[in-house]
Amino acid sequence: MDDINAADKKFLKELNAGIASLVLLGVLDRAREPIYGYRIAKIVEANKQDISMIKQGALYPVLRSLENNGLLQSKVEPSVSGPPRRYYSITDLGRQTLKRWMQIWGQTITFVNSTLGEVGSDDKY
Amino acid sequence: MDDINAADKKFLKELNAGIASLVLLGVLDRAREPIYGYRIAKIVEANKQDISMIKQGALYPVLRSLENNGLLQSKVEPSVSGPPRRYYSITDLGRQTLKRWMQIWGQTITFVNSTLGEVGSDDKY
Repeated sequence: MDDINAADKKFLKELNAGIASLVLLGVLDRAREPIYGYRIAKIVEANKQDISMIKQGALYPVLRSLENNGLLQSKVEPSVSGPPRRYYSITDLGRQTLKRWMQIWGQTITFVNSTLGEVGSDDKY
Repeated sequence: MDDINAADKKFLKELNAGIASLVLLGVLDRAREPIYGYRIAKIVEANKQDISMIKQGALYPVLRSLENNGLLQSKVEPSVSGPPRRYYSITDLGRQTLKRWMQIWGQTITFVNSTLGEVGSDDKY
């Protein structure tokens, strides 16, 4: 995907903003223990497709916003190998919210795919 | 879905902004002839799920933006029953772009679903 232009960039940016909160809440829900930003970025990166979906720098504002809404909590802990790290974990409210968001995400897929039409279908409006 | 709160609203708003261009381009691609805003809104509405995905007022800025990027073209025509209407149709560039965006959309679904984990899976990071 090298022929990326201004319209594509705008589309990608908007689409990624929409899914970032969902993805990060989901990653924290599946984490066994509190994890810090760089590890969250690595997990997101491991699942990326052709196009990098959520840039590492874009993670932090989303994590902060989720925490401000009470969906995540965090604490800063000293690191043996560098500056202190902020560890994030999901709250009960976060887990309830994730359930609703996954429903909304499912409905969004259904909505988009039904509006675009089945792949290979020749139906026209 | 009546327990919608501030965090849910923000999520929905961001998600809808991300898919609006894709959905509108898709609707215009499937239209046999140029169509005007109200009919586009009706087609979108017909496919909506539990939650109204794209509000009618939100259509017009997206249509304008798509037209500014050369993905749609429009012309104003008189109406027998009211003020003149602006009819939209997709351009060749719009069709090429839609193909790329549908690819990106497919990759986004794969990315989100693999990051959230398979439904019912107990895998943890």
